[in-house]
Amino acid sequence: MSNLIEGNAVIGQSGGPTAVINQSLVGVVEGLLAEGAGRPGNPIKRILGMRHGVRGLTHDQLIDLTDKDQATLNAVARTPSAGLGSTRDKPDAEYCSRIFHACEKHDIRYFFYIGGNDSSDTCRIVNELANEAGYELRCFHVPKTVDNDLPINDHTPGYPSAARYVATAFMADNLDNASIPGIKINVIMGRHAGFLAAAAALARTAPGAEPEDGPHLVCLPEVPFDLDAFVEKVAEVYDRLGRCQIAVSEGIQDRDGQAIGAMLIQGEKDAHGNVQLSGSGALGDQLARILKERLKPAAGKPPRVRADTFGYLQRCWPDPSPVDSEEARRAGRYAGVLAASGDVDGSVAILRTGRGTGGEDYRSELERIELSDVAAKTKHMDPSFILDDFDVSSDFIDYARPLIGELPTFGRL
Amino acid sequence: MSNLIEGNAVIGQSGGPTAVINQSLVGVVEGLLAEGAGRPGNPIKRILGMRHGVRGLTHDQLIDLTDKDQATLNAVARTPSAGLGSTRDKPDAEYCSRIFHACEKHDIRYFFYIGGNDSSDTCRIVNELANEAGYELRCFHVPKTVDNDLPINDHTPGYPSAARYVATAFMADNLDNASIPGIKINVIMGRHAGFLAAAAALARTAPGAEPEDGPHLVCLPEVPFDLDAFVEKVAEVYDRLGRCQIAVSEGIQDRDGQAIGAMLIQGEKDAHGNVQLSGSGALGDQLARILKERLKPAAGKPPRVRADTFGYLQRCWPDPSPVDSEEARRAGRYAGVLAASGDVDGSVAILRTGRGTGGEDYRSELERIELSDVAAKTKHMDPSFILDDFDVSSDFIDYARPLIGELPTFGRL
Repeated sequence: MSNLIEGNAVIGQSGGPTAVINQSLVGVVEGLLAEGAGRPGNPIKRILGMRHGVRGLTHDQLIDLTDKDQATLNAVARTPSAGLGSTRDKPDAEYCSRIFHACEKHDIRYFFYIGGNDSSDTCRIVNELANEAGYELRCFHVPKTVDNDLPINDHTPGYPSAARYVATAFMADNLDNASIPGIKINVIMGRHAGFLAAAAALARTAPGAEPEDGPHLVCLPEVPFDLDAFVEKVAEVYDRLGRCQIAVSEGIQDRDGQAIGAMLIQGEKDAHGNVQLSGSGALGDQLARILKERLKPAAGKPPRVRADTFGYLQRCWPDPSPVDSEEARRAGRYAGVLAASGDVDGSVAILRTGRGTGGEDYRSELERIELSDVAAKTKHMDPSFILDDFDVSSDFIDYARPLIGELPTFGRL
Repeated sequence: MSNLIEGNAVIGQSGGPTAVINQSLVGVVEGLLAEGAGRPGNPIKRILGMRHGVRGLTHDQLIDLTDKDQATLNAVARTPSAGLGSTRDKPDAEYCSRIFHACEKHDIRYFFYIGGNDSSDTCRIVNELANEAGYELRCFHVPKTVDNDLPINDHTPGYPSAARYVATAFMADNLDNASIPGIKINVIMGRHAGFLAAAAALARTAPGAEPEDGPHLVCLPEVPFDLDAFVEKVAEVYDRLGRCQIAVSEGIQDRDGQAIGAMLIQGEKDAHGNVQLSGSGALGDQLARILKERLKPAAGKPPRVRADTFGYLQRCWPDPSPVDSEEARRAGRYAGVLAASGDVDGSVAILRTGRGTGGEDYRSELERIELSDVAAKTKHMDPSFILDDFDVSSDFIDYARPLIGELPTFGRL
């Protein structure tokens, strides 16, 4: 450890929170403490937390996490949403100079940022500007995103818990839809990648599931959305079963890459230029209206069509996947230990080493990757995960099922 | 039992399903079986189930429940949504004559209907028309509604579980909102009564809750909705805390009793003349748009405003309140036993006999009430449950808290 710079560590959380982002926060603290941080003679002096990410750091809003007792850490780890507060700020060069200033002022030499694509990009920019400024700062990114769209990672902490919520919701809503038949649209988070919408299909793998259970259509951003084909497919299912349950990603787009949701919503844009897709029921409501109009019989009433937009509960529901909780904690610890290991920076990636299907136990390992490997890059659903325009493949089921934990067992008459 | 008519029993489920409506279904079966139904010599011969309520009954869609094994019954009881299927049909005189015909055809003399206001009214009409037609039929209503708006009942099976979902959702969403501050609207089910929206306030009673936790406003149908006062109150909270979490009932109305939601939605009406309020995000989206416009500062960006509409998951989420599960089962059993007790009909009401607060254990008892006492009547929030235009009172908290079971414990930094 002789080559470690003396100074403090700081940890921040950024972007949309998840059910397990606090596991990673606590994991980093535990990893640093395990390496002796805070003890006399250790080069890593104090472990600080940024309130609301780099926004708090640049406004001297820091709290000391070094001496938190284990009971508090455990309780925080089990709690959804960002315990330190989060931010959507994306630092430019001027913002980054303020970050250096804050780091100098608070003697920070170890910078941990837990977040998704945008957050890893923030981490990369801070790291590069620190290098250019000659300020020795070691930056570590810990992955997090319910969208599951970070490259190299088999999957991303936060995704399994959100997928668990979506699968459970589709199981229950499928029975609700069977109980009072009609057409039901559920809109699911996921700006560019369909992993979370695809998780709806896991409802069909629950113990006691029956062949006619939904979802009957799964609409992903990776498959160009053709409205005519959509209406035709819904009509076919509705004619056959008298009902139809539909999973729609908020990020569905047409052949030209135009987001269907954005075309329907006069939305605001955030600091990253993203149009607001979540926090509005417009996409579901518009699709419901279109189905009602186009499936209206020549005589009689149109079919009963309803739309729910699952919204923010997908990312904060307090019933996380056990695999997700454990991996998020382990990824944080890995970054903390990595920081103490020498002259290094980087991001932590989750690799699958046991498939969790076909008799093989699920297992994962962590490894260090370059910040530039992950920063601002987006992964999409692999083509092998897509069965056809309106469903996922068994490969996807094999991929996602081991991640989300047990689903409830329903009884039927 | 000598005065019991010989014949079969039939059980139906009607209206919006809940997380515990199958507990009541199984309870009726168990109550009848406990009284010897189906055994040689017992006047109650077979226990039948209507597929999709009176719609199934009048189309000969019945299944025999007499010989279901206890493991199946237990599994069904634990499963949300109506296991037999539900319906929103409201029988008129002609429909009722078809019900009699079906009852005669299937030798039905005991008619159980599990549902809310509309369902109890169906029960009453069927009962009256049976009397008029000289067909001896004994009708029993078992209460169910997440709206909690049946008279006489302290509360209604289905409500505690939906309230549990809403309270848990507000706890998690409050942390999400604190994590990325802004204004967050959550729209909650409840056409005329605010009990379910009021349950959002239970989030503030969870272990470890802090004084600044949301919801910061609770908007109920019982309090005339004044848009100016609403905007002013949101602005006050937002100025003070930098964020604001809002619970809005889908049934909020203005001083003239005009539903705010219905004014914003070009909705369809169901067979009962009710405008569709659930299954659309329009109310939340419109309120979000108004807040964004009216709270826009003279210079700079409008506040971040998001709206989620909790939708059908409120009534079917598979994590019911233990009190609710037990009471729903017991109410069903009570009706089954009642039917075998002699020349009687009626509805089952839940009365509270132990407050569940101030050191007194929670307890409830059941009693028979007249069908006409409950049919098509609506209960509203008692004025003592309302603190002011935008919050509930401690009396409401004392009323509702014992019903919903344990809430998660969150840790804070």
